[in-house]
Amino acid sequence: MPKNNFIEKDLSKVNNLIRNNIIEEKTISNLYEYIFRTNGKQLRAQLSLISSSIDKRMGKRRLKLAAVIELLHTATLVHDDVVDDSPVRRGIKSVNNIWSNAHGVLIGDYIYSKAFMLMVELGDSEILNELSKATNDISKGELIQLDAINNKEITLKKLEAISYFKTGRLFEASARCGAILSKGDSKYIKNVSSCSKNLGIVFQIKDDLLDYSQDESTLGKPILQDLREGKVTYPFFFAYKNANRNEKKELELLLGKKKLNQKKVFQLISRLKGIKETQKLALKYIDIATSSAMNIDNKNIRKEMLNLLDASLYRTK
Amino acid sequence: MPKNNFIEKDLSKVNNLIRNNIIEEKTISNLYEYIFRTNGKQLRAQLSLISSSIDKRMGKRRLKLAAVIELLHTATLVHDDVVDDSPVRRGIKSVNNIWSNAHGVLIGDYIYSKAFMLMVELGDSEILNELSKATNDISKGELIQLDAINNKEITLKKLEAISYFKTGRLFEASARCGAILSKGDSKYIKNVSSCSKNLGIVFQIKDDLLDYSQDESTLGKPILQDLREGKVTYPFFFAYKNANRNEKKELELLLGKKKLNQKKVFQLISRLKGIKETQKLALKYIDIATSSAMNIDNKNIRKEMLNLLDASLYRTK
Repeated sequence: MPKNNFIEKDLSKVNNLIRNNIIEEKTISNLYEYIFRTNGKQLRAQLSLISSSIDKRMGKRRLKLAAVIELLHTATLVHDDVVDDSPVRRGIKSVNNIWSNAHGVLIGDYIYSKAFMLMVELGDSEILNELSKATNDISKGELIQLDAINNKEITLKKLEAISYFKTGRLFEASARCGAILSKGDSKYIKNVSSCSKNLGIVFQIKDDLLDYSQDESTLGKPILQDLREGKVTYPFFFAYKNANRNEKKELELLLGKKKLNQKKVFQLISRLKGIKETQKLALKYIDIATSSAMNIDNKNIRKEMLNLLDASLYRTK
Repeated sequence: MPKNNFIEKDLSKVNNLIRNNIIEEKTISNLYEYIFRTNGKQLRAQLSLISSSIDKRMGKRRLKLAAVIELLHTATLVHDDVVDDSPVRRGIKSVNNIWSNAHGVLIGDYIYSKAFMLMVELGDSEILNELSKATNDISKGELIQLDAINNKEITLKKLEAISYFKTGRLFEASARCGAILSKGDSKYIKNVSSCSKNLGIVFQIKDDLLDYSQDESTLGKPILQDLREGKVTYPFFFAYKNANRNEKKELELLLGKKKLNQKKVFQLISRLKGIKETQKLALKYIDIATSSAMNIDNKNIRKEMLNLLDASLYRTK
């Protein structure tokens, strides 16, 4: 994902802030350093930096907010790896893989509470309110998703709720808190939040689509993981909706199966319009996000948001 | 543990507050109701209710603070059960046992963030600061404890740090926040916090002692669990310190062993003064807690605190 220069610079300051924050027991610093050795796309931190850039005088506080958001996001990832029993994260072994589930749960809690400590230091009650609610919504989304396992009868509405709570919600909160911190007016807060929320949903839909990629060499991680875990996501959902009785049976047999003929799966899902309809859904959310972006008066911020939207639609990993 | 009348009444209001707080997705409300179906001793909530009772006009806010503390504590218990792979909690099956580890991790996160949401509603920055730090310290204590597994060389200082972070810290924060909420003066805050902190440490030491009970029928849960998990706690620590070369070897063989001759273990630990020295340590902390309690000017609160100290020393489960 392309990052512009000033955001790139800010992000590296944010990462220093995160890394320098920890002088603790050896076990803790080892875990912490390991986790923050690699960075992901840091989209949420970027959104908070972008939306707070209408008033750069916020300086240190602006960076601290982005660090809080990155910490919150990282805590959810570490716990997710325990929840999904994932051996790998961002190309390196997960904490639960190298250490144990116990370490994953506890260092996740440690990072969560560290985020809250820094958030309290920011001392803005609106931000505290938004971020504590968003954190709660994320776990809500993850819990609802557990229900989606092996659930062929799940509704589109529920899948969309999962995408919002699990991913869109923190995107939204990141932008909203950035806008609140830099004292944006209510119209600005509304537009930048809505744009980010819908960008987050697109991001999640795209994630679900990438799991049904035809070629895993470009993706850099194994494909069809969701299917193997029995997780019903958009491509499967649409394919199942369009399937006749026999095809439905065929799809049901695939759900949760560890050994799959990848090519055959792709052909089936594709033929039943699982890919095409998911892409169409992504475009719907891109449209909503784009019109919110177009309503942002600040030209630079509008441009930044449109760039992120563009990149998210065309990302291949 | 005896609860006096007014605290008993308050506690039941607190429990209603906790239970009524949730109208969500079915999965979430099922988990939540299951977890809060049984109450433990609720010592932490009691401490916050007692210490905040110097000014009862706080009414609803006083109860909300106690609910926040009970939620935080419960979240740590749910995660602990995942960490320790415990099948049982408070006499009923644990969440990870009935549902899964994934459910345990996520509903724990849900309850944590719910606690933070309510805390933010209280709108007191000192309380936010204290509780977010305490939550961080708890996970720190748990992480340090993971290091204590199979570690015969652990120091007494480290064991005491674990007891403080893991247990004493939230006892301390509960009392301190109650005192802050009801606008106690700094002397009152100091004494009630110190008394509670040391009560918490005693509570943990007593917990470690009960695991080495001679008779598990009064305890209501299996004994020697810590030893079986390879966890070095006070009784083992002191016994090991007092052991000669051969006895040390004998002790090393017991650590982490699943099948134990309970009577023989008890005799060995006992003979090497593991029980007696742990009891002596508990008395040291009871003394500190008692002198802090004696310095509390408010007669009723002093009495309440002394009662809790008394009960904690003589508890048999």
